Amino acid sequence: MEHHESKFKEFPYASVPHRELMVELVSTVENRLGESLLPCTLPSHVQYFENESATAHASLYVRSGNSSSQVDFILGSWVHCNLPTGGALNITSLSAYLRPSTDAPNFLIEVIRSSPTTLILILDLPPRKDLVQHPDYLKTFYEETQLDKQRQLLEKLPEVKPYFSSSLYIRSLVSPLAILVSIETEPSQAIRIDEIIQDHISPVAKVMLDTWLDLCACTERRLTDDESADLAKRDRIIKNKTIEIDLESSFPRLFGQEVANQVLGVLREIYNS
Amino acid sequence: MEHHESKFKEFPYASVPHRELMVELVSTVENRLGESLLPCTLPSHVQYFENESATAHASLYVRSGNSSSQVDFILGSWVHCNLPTGGALNITSLSAYLRPSTDAPNFLIEVIRSSPTTLILILDLPPRKDLVQHPDYLKTFYEETQLDKQRQLLEKLPEVKPYFSSSLYIRSLVSPLAILVSIETEPSQAIRIDEIIQDHISPVAKVMLDTWLDLCACTERRLTDDESADLAKRDRIIKNKTIEIDLESSFPRLFGQEVANQVLGVLREIYNS
Repeated sequence: MEHHESKFKEFPYASVPHRELMVELVSTVENRLGESLLPCTLPSHVQYFENESATAHASLYVRSGNSSSQVDFILGSWVHCNLPTGGALNITSLSAYLRPSTDAPNFLIEVIRSSPTTLILILDLPPRKDLVQHPDYLKTFYEETQLDKQRQLLEKLPEVKPYFSSSLYIRSLVSPLAILVSIETEPSQAIRIDEIIQDHISPVAKVMLDTWLDLCACTERRLTDDESADLAKRDRIIKNKTIEIDLESSFPRLFGQEVANQVLGVLREIYNS
Repeated sequence: MEHHESKFKEFPYASVPHRELMVELVSTVENRLGESLLPCTLPSHVQYFENESATAHASLYVRSGNSSSQVDFILGSWVHCNLPTGGALNITSLSAYLRPSTDAPNFLIEVIRSSPTTLILILDLPPRKDLVQHPDYLKTFYEETQLDKQRQLLEKLPEVKPYFSSSLYIRSLVSPLAILVSIETEPSQAIRIDEIIQDHISPVAKVMLDTWLDLCACTERRLTDDESADLAKRDRIIKNKTIEIDLESSFPRLFGQEVANQVLGVLREIYNS
């Protein structure tokens, strides 16, 4: 298990700046949340798995919050697969889900690289309430934190364009200041993507994560029982839809039905426990 | 009154293609909804008003649905004001709000021109439920209607860029396929904006409006009393926040406090009746 746990944090297929970014974010969360996070208890065949022909590899990493924590769990992952066109697809992600004892937003970062010159970044504090009905919630977590400035910093780079997920559900799920961008450089400028990760994405991701840790994971909110029950219901819908959209459609294709079933079965248990 | 009612539909400060677009949208709604819309009963000083120095002019037009209609009201407006820089700001809008007897989306178009070479377009069917909690609603009104294709049509034009409203509330309010774009042409190409209105915005707006008329305004949905009560609450928050963000901040500046108070007072009554 030790071997596989460390495998997640190796991010073996990511470029150096991409790996450093992910390692720093995971470490920041783990250091800050400390012993309130239980050890990763995923079975080893879920901590690391591949398809029969070993052209697709993935690693998952889950740590649940202990019973007194507001954190439900953190989930890290990487996926690498060879593309028929000759290149490779590399995805790394870190998400953190809070419990219905607080209504504060979750945290999400996903970095998708399908070639040396392209990158898609999804970085957000996805809200856990309908913002239209709760302007005070919008004010507390999104307006007063001024996080839209982080989005604007990236928007200024000439290589950066807004990214529209093909899933309208994913677009609905994110906050109004979500960073959803695709970055593309000239073929001769592949190194520029790593510069952008290091000089621009990394500082922005750290600000977003620090804000989440300070204001969301480590601040208490007083909720009524009814509010908690509503949140629990909404959280459950989000988790199930996210598995459906993100993984159920792609994992069987990438890893074969048997491996996909095993992995998704374990994830569904965690998501619904 | 007749004079002022027709003044709204004159859109006296819009370019010909811009005026033709707005007139066609208003006519389409009025023809389709027919006698289910009551006549405009706005006082004449709200149907048309200006500031003391006559550098800012505006017209409002409201028709409520009759008691058996699902339409709460339609609201059209135009605003024209001279800018200190020498140019003029021209805004035209049409929105349609439904009653809590249906949960179907509303309709919204706003065209903002602050110079001959720039245009901001907001075009959407704003949802009336939290889409995250209601994936079936997302499917019915947004996925199955394939309206995202309309957004993609405009996105392809080189002059078109995504537009981010400075209000996070407005960004929260719109659907995941909302068309929020800014269009900018070279100073020598001012005529190109009118071509884009005629050849690209106009057909897209008509598809969006026809979809709204067919699927939202003229189709019945069965709701429980609880669902209607929740909708009524959410609708009220939206209307009050929209007045606050859109008008309360700008009308006093444009028209002076006295005129603004009169106009906003009448609008608040309509929004809350």
